[in-house]
Amino acid sequence: MKNVVIISAGGQGKRMGRPKQFIEVAGKPILEWTISVFQKCDMIDEIILVVNEDRVDQAKKFNYSKIVNIVVGGEARQDSVRNGLKVLSADTEIVAIHDGARPMITTDIIENAIVEAKESGAAVVGVPVCDTIKRVTSNELRVTGTVDRSALWRAQTPQVFRKDIITKAYQQAEKVTDDSALVEKMGVPVKMVIGSYQNIKITTPFDLEIVERILDKGGIK
Amino acid sequence: MKNVVIISAGGQGKRMGRPKQFIEVAGKPILEWTISVFQKCDMIDEIILVVNEDRVDQAKKFNYSKIVNIVVGGEARQDSVRNGLKVLSADTEIVAIHDGARPMITTDIIENAIVEAKESGAAVVGVPVCDTIKRVTSNELRVTGTVDRSALWRAQTPQVFRKDIITKAYQQAEKVTDDSALVEKMGVPVKMVIGSYQNIKITTPFDLEIVERILDKGGIK
Repeated sequence: MKNVVIISAGGQGKRMGRPKQFIEVAGKPILEWTISVFQKCDMIDEIILVVNEDRVDQAKKFNYSKIVNIVVGGEARQDSVRNGLKVLSADTEIVAIHDGARPMITTDIIENAIVEAKESGAAVVGVPVCDTIKRVTSNELRVTGTVDRSALWRAQTPQVFRKDIITKAYQQAEKVTDDSALVEKMGVPVKMVIGSYQNIKITTPFDLEIVERILDKGGIK
Repeated sequence: MKNVVIISAGGQGKRMGRPKQFIEVAGKPILEWTISVFQKCDMIDEIILVVNEDRVDQAKKFNYSKIVNIVVGGEARQDSVRNGLKVLSADTEIVAIHDGARPMITTDIIENAIVEAKESGAAVVGVPVCDTIKRVTSNELRVTGTVDRSALWRAQTPQVFRKDIITKAYQQAEKVTDDSALVEKMGVPVKMVIGSYQNIKITTPFDLEIVERILDKGGIK
């Protein structure tokens, strides 16, 4: 039975003005940096890449043996993941879903999440919230309280699921903002797996600077 | 009446293994980068610097005209701020409290926070939470839900107060983890002021890398 990752790279990069996954850093597009981590992860058997239609030709030139399928993404992230789920091979056991714009994931974290998902059915990578969190009104920006952060974690990706669980969750869902939230609603126990503060999603030029700095030095140690 | 900033730089740098404020980046200690922003901020009249005893001599050599006092910090952050509050000049109207390890603050943000604090009595700089936030059990790391993040902000510094408010808050408090939380408890309206995602507190080697990258290029634009 196989462990498959769906790498979602269909975003339009609204905040950056261009699709961030395709910006070149330290000699290759960010998306390739992301793919290369899954390529070298022993527990990943197959990679399904979801990109916008106008990026399919470029994606086809990526030279990674584990890429088994390049799928065209939909309007929203949820459509991209859905399209990826449709092409899973029949002998898939575990599905990891990962943001194309998170190149600083490590093989260790991926493997920990797969191990947890095999056991419990679902696992999400994340890190504890370390900032003081305030509750603020939306109109006046008045602080109404300080939130107890001791139980709060920031979710990252990959989010990893047994295939039957995530496909069922998507069948039931209409609107998806977070894959794990769907699975939580089904009553499936979801485990948090410790990620890293470096595993950022590139959404702003500042994020890009951070990642450039690290990748220029050869990536995460 | 004066606007004064207390820059708290008494930390021991437990997570970095050395006091992070004194690590040199792009030619000067991080603390000096922080001081220099307040020095060039037109709305700041005086700087009170709180450092550990063994850093007083080094701090005395800092050459910024607005530094009026160098105070020895206490065991915890709260003691450092308390020691700073003790030496405020009588004609102080506004007190900003800022982390020495947050060099990427800008004069604009400081000024916005001072303006708000003059009006409402208290203002905290922060940014909206943009990650998916999960509630997680502490023992099993089981996800118990997805938190509505729409009203949640990450507090940064400066936190800015009218002098009478913050001194009263400290008189009443025994243990302080967050200055603003004290003031909130007093029923004073606290305003959130939009900071920036760049305004990070340096606590890990990764944070240091990020800040090095920006300061090497001459700082925040």
